[in-house]
Amino acid sequence: MRIVFVGDSLTVGVGDPQYLGWPGRLCAASPAAGLGLTLYNLGVRSETSRHLKARLGRELPPRLLPRDEARIVLSFGVNDAKIENGRRKVELAESVDNLFDIASRATALCPTLVVGPPPVLDDAYRCRIEELSDVFAGVCAEMGVGYLEMCRPLCRERAYLDSLVASGDGYHPGAEGYAAFAARVAAWDAWLAWFV
Amino acid sequence: MRIVFVGDSLTVGVGDPQYLGWPGRLCAASPAAGLGLTLYNLGVRSETSRHLKARLGRELPPRLLPRDEARIVLSFGVNDAKIENGRRKVELAESVDNLFDIASRATALCPTLVVGPPPVLDDAYRCRIEELSDVFAGVCAEMGVGYLEMCRPLCRERAYLDSLVASGDGYHPGAEGYAAFAARVAAWDAWLAWFV
Repeated sequence: MRIVFVGDSLTVGVGDPQYLGWPGRLCAASPAAGLGLTLYNLGVRSETSRHLKARLGRELPPRLLPRDEARIVLSFGVNDAKIENGRRKVELAESVDNLFDIASRATALCPTLVVGPPPVLDDAYRCRIEELSDVFAGVCAEMGVGYLEMCRPLCRERAYLDSLVASGDGYHPGAEGYAAFAARVAAWDAWLAWFV
Repeated sequence: MRIVFVGDSLTVGVGDPQYLGWPGRLCAASPAAGLGLTLYNLGVRSETSRHLKARLGRELPPRLLPRDEARIVLSFGVNDAKIENGRRKVELAESVDNLFDIASRATALCPTLVVGPPPVLDDAYRCRIEELSDVFAGVCAEMGVGYLEMCRPLCRERAYLDSLVASGDGYHPGAEGYAAFAARVAAWDAWLAWFV
Protein backbone atom coordinates (compact mmCIF):
# COMPACT_ATOMS: atom_id res chain seq x y z
CA MET A 1 0.00 0.00 0.00
CA ARG A 2 1.13 3.57 -0.75
CA ILE A 3 -0.35 6.40 1.28
CA VAL A 4 -0.01 10.00 0.17
CA PHE A 5 -0.47 12.63 2.88
CA VAL A 6 -1.50 15.99 1.49
CA GLY A 7 -1.35 19.20 3.48
CA ASP A 8 0.65 22.06 4.93
CA SER A 9 3.53 22.54 7.41
CA LEU A 10 1.65 20.56 10.07
CA THR A 11 1.49 17.60 7.69
CA VAL A 12 5.15 17.79 6.70
CA GLY A 13 6.00 17.98 10.42
CA VAL A 14 7.65 21.39 10.78
CA GLY A 15 9.18 21.75 14.23
CA ASP A 16 9.67 18.01 14.80
CA PRO A 17 13.36 17.45 15.56
CA GLN A 18 12.81 13.75 14.73
CA TYR A 19 11.51 14.48 11.20
CA LEU A 20 8.59 12.09 11.41
CA GLY A 21 5.64 14.46 11.89
CA TRP A 22 2.34 12.75 12.55
CA PRO A 23 2.28 10.83 9.23
CA GLY A 24 5.64 9.16 10.01
CA ARG A 25 4.56 8.14 13.50
CA LEU A 26 1.19 6.99 12.20
CA CYS A 27 2.68 4.74 9.51
CA ALA A 28 5.35 3.37 11.88
CA ALA A 29 2.55 2.38 14.28
CA SER A 30 0.38 0.83 11.56
CA PRO A 31 -0.06 -2.92 11.15
CA ALA A 32 1.60 -2.68 7.69
CA ALA A 33 4.78 -0.82 8.75
CA GLY A 34 7.82 -1.75 6.62
CA LEU A 35 8.23 -2.82 3.01
CA GLY A 36 4.48 -3.23 2.55
CA LEU A 37 3.60 0.40 3.26
CA THR A 38 5.14 3.41 1.52
CA LEU A 39 4.58 6.91 2.88
CA TYR A 40 4.58 9.96 0.61
CA ASN A 41 4.42 13.28 2.44
CA LEU A 42 3.18 16.14 0.27
CA GLY A 43 2.84 18.74 3.02
CA VAL A 44 4.18 22.17 2.07
CA ARG A 45 4.73 25.08 4.46
CA SER A 46 2.27 27.97 4.55
CA GLU A 47 -0.03 26.49 1.94
CA THR A 48 -3.79 27.02 2.00
CA SER A 49 -6.47 24.92 0.33
CA ARG A 50 -6.05 27.20 -2.71
CA HIS A 51 -2.41 26.18 -3.13
CA LEU A 52 -3.20 22.49 -2.62
CA LYS A 53 -5.97 22.58 -5.19
CA ALA A 54 -3.51 24.00 -7.72
CA ARG A 55 -0.75 21.40 -7.32
CA LEU A 56 -2.49 18.13 -6.45
CA GLY A 57 -3.48 17.23 -9.97
CA ARG A 58 0.21 17.26 -10.90
CA GLU A 59 1.73 15.65 -7.79
CA LEU A 60 -0.63 12.79 -6.99
CA PRO A 61 -0.50 10.60 -10.15
CA PRO A 62 3.20 9.53 -10.02
CA ARG A 63 2.71 8.42 -6.40
CA LEU A 64 -0.49 6.40 -6.85
CA LEU A 65 0.95 3.48 -8.83
CA PRO A 66 -0.33 0.82 -8.78
CA ARG A 67 -3.69 2.50 -8.31
CA ASP A 68 -5.34 -0.35 -6.37
CA GLU A 69 -2.70 -0.05 -3.63
CA ALA A 70 -3.04 3.73 -3.29
CA ARG A 71 -4.65 5.74 -0.49
CA ILE A 72 -4.87 9.49 0.20
CA VAL A 73 -5.08 11.37 3.51
CA LEU A 74 -5.96 15.07 3.26
CA SER A 75 -5.29 17.49 6.13
CA PHE A 76 -5.40 21.27 5.80
CA GLY A 77 -7.25 24.36 6.94
CA VAL A 78 -5.14 26.06 9.63
CA ASN A 79 -3.58 28.41 7.06
CA ASP A 80 -6.97 29.09 5.45
CA ALA A 81 -8.23 30.47 8.78
CA LYS A 82 -5.16 32.65 9.38
CA ILE A 83 -5.50 36.43 9.38
CA GLU A 84 -2.72 38.14 7.42
CA ASN A 85 -2.57 41.89 6.76
CA GLY A 86 -6.03 42.22 8.25
CA ARG A 87 -7.61 39.62 5.97
CA ARG A 88 -8.39 35.93 6.26
CA LYS A 89 -6.08 34.06 3.86
CA VAL A 90 -9.00 32.07 2.44
CA GLU A 91 -12.65 32.95 3.11
CA LEU A 92 -14.75 30.16 4.59
CA ALA A 93 -16.90 29.76 1.47
CA GLU A 94 -13.82 29.32 -0.72
CA SER A 95 -12.26 26.83 1.73
CA VAL A 96 -15.43 24.74 1.45
CA ASP A 97 -15.37 24.90 -2.36
CA ASN A 98 -11.70 23.91 -2.33
CA LEU A 99 -12.27 20.98 0.04
CA PHE A 100 -15.10 19.77 -2.19
CA ASP A 101 -12.93 20.06 -5.29
CA ILE A 102 -9.85 18.42 -3.72
CA ALA A 103 -11.79 15.60 -2.04
CA SER A 104 -13.80 14.93 -5.23
CA ARG A 105 -10.63 14.55 -7.26
CA ALA A 106 -8.92 12.44 -4.58
CA THR A 107 -11.84 10.04 -4.11
CA ALA A 108 -12.04 9.59 -7.88
CA LEU A 109 -8.46 8.29 -7.74
CA CYS A 110 -8.52 6.04 -4.64
CA PRO A 111 -9.89 5.66 -1.09
CA THR A 112 -9.47 8.96 0.77
CA LEU A 113 -9.77 10.21 4.35
CA VAL A 114 -9.76 13.74 5.74
CA VAL A 115 -8.04 14.63 9.01
CA GLY A 116 -9.22 17.96 10.42
CA PRO A 117 -7.00 20.94 11.24
CA PRO A 118 -5.46 20.91 14.75
CA PRO A 119 -5.70 23.75 17.30
CA VAL A 120 -3.34 26.70 17.77
CA LEU A 121 -2.73 28.58 21.04
CA ASP A 122 -4.36 31.89 20.06
CA ASP A 123 -8.04 31.82 21.15
CA ALA A 124 -9.62 33.82 18.31
CA TYR A 125 -7.62 31.94 15.69
CA ARG A 126 -8.55 28.60 17.27
CA CYS A 127 -12.25 29.53 17.17
CA ARG A 128 -11.97 30.12 13.42
CA ILE A 129 -10.30 26.71 13.03
CA GLU A 130 -13.11 25.06 15.03
CA GLU A 131 -15.70 26.73 12.82
CA LEU A 132 -13.84 25.59 9.69
CA SER A 133 -13.53 22.08 11.09
CA ASP A 134 -17.28 21.88 11.74
CA VAL A 135 -18.06 23.00 8.20
CA PHE A 136 -15.48 20.54 6.78
CA ALA A 137 -17.11 17.75 8.81
CA GLY A 138 -20.45 18.58 7.19
CA VAL A 139 -19.01 18.63 3.66
CA CYS A 140 -17.31 15.27 4.21
CA ALA A 141 -20.48 13.74 5.66
CA GLU A 142 -22.40 14.84 2.55
CA MET A 143 -19.69 13.40 0.31
CA GLY A 144 -19.47 10.13 2.25
CA VAL A 145 -15.78 10.76 3.03
CA GLY A 146 -14.42 9.88 6.48
CA TYR A 147 -13.56 12.96 8.58
CA LEU A 148 -11.70 13.04 11.89
CA GLU A 149 -12.13 16.15 14.03
CA MET A 150 -8.82 17.14 15.62
CA CYS A 151 -9.20 20.72 16.88
CA ARG A 152 -11.37 20.20 19.97
CA PRO A 153 -9.95 16.77 20.95
CA LEU A 154 -6.32 17.93 20.75
CA CYS A 155 -7.26 21.09 22.63
CA ARG A 156 -8.15 18.86 25.57
CA GLU A 157 -4.80 17.07 25.41
CA ARG A 158 -2.13 18.45 27.70
CA ALA A 159 0.68 16.89 25.60
CA TYR A 160 -0.44 18.80 22.49
CA LEU A 161 -0.94 22.14 24.22
CA ASP A 162 2.35 21.87 26.13
CA SER A 163 4.07 21.05 22.85
CA LEU A 164 2.61 24.18 21.20
CA VAL A 165 3.86 26.31 24.09
CA ALA A 166 7.31 24.71 24.06
CA SER A 167 7.77 25.11 20.29
CA GLY A 168 7.60 28.85 20.69
CA ASP A 169 5.29 29.72 17.81
CA GLY A 170 2.01 28.46 19.26
CA TYR A 171 1.22 26.83 15.94
CA HIS A 172 3.61 23.92 15.27
CA PRO A 173 3.93 21.30 18.01
CA GLY A 174 7.16 19.43 18.72
CA ALA A 175 7.75 15.68 18.86
CA GLU A 176 5.30 15.06 21.75
CA GLY A 177 2.55 17.03 20.04
CA TYR A 178 2.95 15.18 16.76
CA ALA A 179 2.90 11.90 18.72
CA ALA A 180 -0.43 12.89 20.34
CA PHE A 181 -1.79 13.86 16.89
CA ALA A 182 -0.68 10.53 15.37
CA ALA A 183 -2.15 8.50 18.24
CA ARG A 184 -5.63 9.95 17.58
CA VAL A 185 -5.50 9.05 13.88
CA ALA A 186 -4.03 5.62 14.67
CA ALA A 187 -7.07 4.79 16.80
CA TRP A 188 -9.57 5.93 14.13
CA ASP A 189 -11.82 3.17 12.77
CA ALA A 190 -11.69 4.53 9.21
CA TRP A 191 -7.86 4.48 9.23
CA LEU A 192 -7.67 1.01 10.77
CA ALA A 193 -10.12 -0.31 8.18
CA TRP A 194 -7.44 0.17 5.50
CA PHE A 195 -5.35 -2.55 7.14
CA VAL A 196 -7.98 -5.24 7.64
CA MET B 1 16.52 26.33 5.79
CA ARG B 2 14.37 24.03 3.62
CA ILE B 3 16.00 21.01 2.03
CA VAL B 4 14.30 19.13 -0.79
CA PHE B 5 15.50 15.55 -1.33
CA VAL B 6 14.83 14.35 -4.86
CA GLY B 7 15.03 10.71 -5.88
CA ASP B 8 13.49 7.25 -5.96
CA SER B 9 12.34 4.60 -3.46
CA LEU B 10 15.73 4.67 -1.72
CA THR B 11 15.28 8.39 -1.09
CA VAL B 12 11.73 8.07 0.19
CA GLY B 13 12.96 5.26 2.46
CA VAL B 14 11.00 2.23 1.25
CA GLY B 15 11.50 -0.68 3.64
CA ASP B 16 12.26 1.47 6.68
CA PRO B 17 9.76 0.52 9.42
CA GLN B 18 10.63 3.81 11.16
CA TYR B 19 9.65 5.94 8.13
CA LEU B 20 12.72 8.17 8.29
CA GLY B 21 14.84 6.85 5.42
CA TRP B 22 18.28 8.39 5.16
CA PRO B 23 17.01 11.96 4.65
CA GLY B 24 15.07 11.87 7.95
CA ARG B 25 18.02 10.50 9.90
CA LEU B 26 20.35 12.96 8.21
CA CYS B 27 18.23 16.00 9.08
CA ALA B 28 17.62 14.78 12.64
CA ALA B 29 21.40 14.53 13.11
CA SER B 30 22.10 17.94 11.54
CA PRO B 31 23.10 20.97 13.59
CA ALA B 32 19.88 22.74 12.48
CA ALA B 33 17.40 19.98 13.48
CA GLY B 34 14.02 21.34 14.59
CA LEU B 35 12.01 24.42 13.61
CA GLY B 36 14.94 25.89 11.66
CA LEU B 37 15.19 23.04 9.15
CA THR B 38 12.33 21.72 7.03
CA LEU B 39 12.69 18.45 5.13
CA TYR B 40 10.78 17.80 1.90
CA ASN B 41 11.11 14.27 0.56
CA LEU B 42 10.33 13.98 -3.14
CA GLY B 43 11.46 10.40 -3.60
CA VAL B 44 9.07 8.27 -5.69
CA ARG B 45 9.20 4.49 -6.07
CA SER B 46 10.60 2.95 -9.26
CA GLU B 47 11.46 6.27 -10.85
CA THR B 48 14.44 6.70 -13.16
CA SER B 49 16.23 9.94 -14.05
CA ARG B 50 13.76 10.24 -16.95
CA HIS B 51 10.80 10.42 -14.55
CA LEU B 52 12.57 12.86 -12.25
CA LYS B 53 13.46 15.16 -15.12
CA ALA B 54 9.79 15.26 -16.11
CA ARG B 55 8.35 16.20 -12.70
CA LEU B 56 10.98 18.35 -10.99
CA GLY B 57 10.14 21.57 -12.77
CA ARG B 58 6.62 21.31 -11.32
CA GLU B 59 7.39 20.03 -7.82
CA LEU B 60 10.40 22.07 -6.72
CA PRO B 61 9.14 25.69 -6.86
CA PRO B 62 6.42 25.52 -4.14
CA ARG B 63 8.98 24.01 -1.74
CA LEU B 64 11.83 26.46 -2.30
CA LEU B 65 10.29 29.51 -0.65
CA PRO B 66 11.99 31.68 0.47
CA ARG B 67 14.59 30.94 -2.18
CA ASP B 68 17.61 32.05 -0.10
CA GLU B 69 16.81 29.40 2.52
CA ALA B 70 16.41 26.57 -0.01
CA ARG B 71 18.73 23.66 -0.72
CA ILE B 72 18.40 20.58 -2.97
CA VAL B 73 19.89 17.09 -2.60
CA LEU B 74 19.63 14.84 -5.67
CA SER B 75 20.03 11.06 -5.41
CA PHE B 76 19.08 8.62 -8.17
CA GLY B 77 20.48 6.10 -10.61
CA VAL B 78 19.79 2.61 -9.21
CA ASN B 79 16.62 2.30 -11.30
CA ASP B 80 18.37 3.67 -14.40
CA ALA B 81 20.84 0.76 -14.23
CA LYS B 82 18.13 -1.87 -13.73
CA ILE B 83 17.54 -4.50 -16.43
CA GLU B 84 13.83 -5.02 -17.11
CA ASN B 85 12.49 -7.28 -19.86
CA GLY B 86 16.03 -7.73 -21.12
CA ARG B 87 16.72 -4.01 -21.45
CA ARG B 88 18.37 -1.41 -19.27
CA LYS B 89 15.66 1.00 -18.05
CA VAL B 90 17.76 4.01 -19.03
CA GLU B 91 20.89 3.79 -21.18
CA LEU B 92 24.03 5.26 -19.66
CA ALA B 93 24.26 8.12 -22.15
CA GLU B 94 20.69 9.19 -21.40
CA SER B 95 21.28 8.96 -17.62
CA VAL B 96 24.19 11.36 -18.04
CA ASP B 97 22.11 13.78 -20.11
CA ASN B 98 19.34 13.60 -17.52
CA LEU B 99 21.73 14.24 -14.61
CA PHE B 100 23.15 17.23 -16.46
CA ASP B 101 19.68 18.60 -17.16
CA ILE B 102 18.37 18.01 -13.62
CA ALA B 103 21.49 19.34 -11.87
CA SER B 104 21.61 22.39 -14.16
CA ARG B 105 18.03 23.29 -13.31
CA ALA B 106 18.54 22.61 -9.59
CA THR B 107 21.72 24.67 -9.27
CA ALA B 108 20.01 27.54 -11.09
CA LEU B 109 17.46 27.55 -8.26
CA CYS B 110 19.64 27.10 -5.15
CA PRO B 111 22.73 25.31 -3.76
CA THR B 112 22.60 21.64 -4.75
CA LEU B 113 24.44 18.44 -3.85
CA VAL B 114 24.35 15.00 -5.47
CA VAL B 115 24.46 11.78 -3.43
CA GLY B 116 25.40 8.76 -5.54
CA PRO B 117 23.32 5.59 -5.92
CA PRO B 118 23.92 2.91 -3.25
CA PRO B 119 24.81 -0.75 -3.92
CA VAL B 120 22.45 -3.70 -4.39
CA LEU B 121 23.26 -7.36 -3.60
CA ASP B 122 23.30 -8.67 -7.19
CA ASP B 123 26.88 -8.49 -8.49
CA ALA B 124 26.23 -7.67 -12.15
CA TYR B 125 23.64 -5.04 -11.22
CA ARG B 126 26.01 -3.52 -8.67
CA CYS B 127 28.76 -3.26 -11.29
CA ARG B 128 26.42 -1.24 -13.52
CA ILE B 129 25.64 1.06 -10.56
CA GLU B 130 29.37 1.54 -9.89
CA GLU B 131 29.94 2.44 -13.52
CA LEU B 132 27.04 4.90 -13.44
CA SER B 133 28.34 6.37 -10.18
CA ASP B 134 31.79 6.95 -11.68
CA VAL B 135 30.31 8.71 -14.71
CA PHE B 136 28.00 10.79 -12.46
CA ALA B 137 31.05 11.80 -10.40
CA GLY B 138 32.75 13.06 -13.55
CA VAL B 139 29.71 15.04 -14.69
CA CYS B 140 29.36 16.66 -11.25
CA ALA B 141 33.08 17.51 -11.14
CA GLU B 142 32.76 19.25 -14.53
CA MET B 143 29.70 21.14 -13.32
CA GLY B 144 31.28 22.10 -10.01
CA VAL B 145 28.54 20.30 -8.06
CA GLY B 146 29.44 18.31 -4.94
CA TYR B 147 29.13 14.53 -5.44
CA LEU B 148 29.34 11.84 -2.78
CA GLU B 149 30.11 8.30 -3.96
CA MET B 150 28.01 5.78 -2.05
CA CYS B 151 28.15 2.49 -3.97
CA ARG B 152 31.68 1.28 -3.11
CA PRO B 153 31.83 2.75 0.42
CA LEU B 154 28.47 1.22 1.43
CA CYS B 155 29.51 -2.05 -0.17
CA ARG B 156 32.28 -2.24 2.40
CA GLU B 157 29.86 -1.63 5.28
CA ARG B 158 28.58 -4.75 6.98
CA ALA B 159 25.54 -2.88 8.38
CA TYR B 160 24.38 -1.91 4.90
CA LEU B 161 24.91 -5.31 3.31
CA ASP B 162 23.29 -7.14 6.23
CA SER B 163 20.36 -4.77 5.94
CA LEU B 164 19.97 -5.56 2.22
CA VAL B 165 19.96 -9.28 3.00
CA ALA B 166 17.49 -8.89 5.87
CA SER B 167 15.05 -6.78 3.84
CA GLY B 168 14.56 -9.66 1.47
CA ASP B 169 14.71 -7.81 -1.84
CA GLY B 170 18.47 -7.15 -1.97
CA TYR B 171 17.72 -3.61 -3.03
CA HIS B 172 16.09 -1.65 -0.20
CA PRO B 173 17.87 -1.68 3.17
CA GLY B 174 16.04 -1.56 6.49
CA ALA B 175 16.51 0.86 9.38
CA GLU B 176 20.17 -0.06 10.03
CA GLY B 177 21.07 0.30 6.35
CA TYR B 178 19.44 3.70 6.08
CA ALA B 179 21.26 4.74 9.26
CA ALA B 180 24.61 3.72 7.71
CA PHE B 181 23.68 5.65 4.55
CA ALA B 182 22.74 8.76 6.53
CA ALA B 183 25.91 8.62 8.63
CA ARG B 184 28.09 8.84 5.50
CA VAL B 185 26.25 11.90 4.20
CA ALA B 186 26.25 13.48 7.68
CA ALA B 187 30.05 13.34 7.74
CA TRP B 188 30.43 14.88 4.26
CA ASP B 189 32.17 18.28 4.21
CA ALA B 190 29.90 19.64 1.48
CA TRP B 191 26.79 18.80 3.55
CA LEU B 192 28.23 20.18 6.78
CA ALA B 193 29.19 23.41 5.00
CA TRP B 194 25.48 24.24 4.68
CA PHE B 195 25.24 24.61 8.46
CA VAL B 196 28.29 26.78 9.15
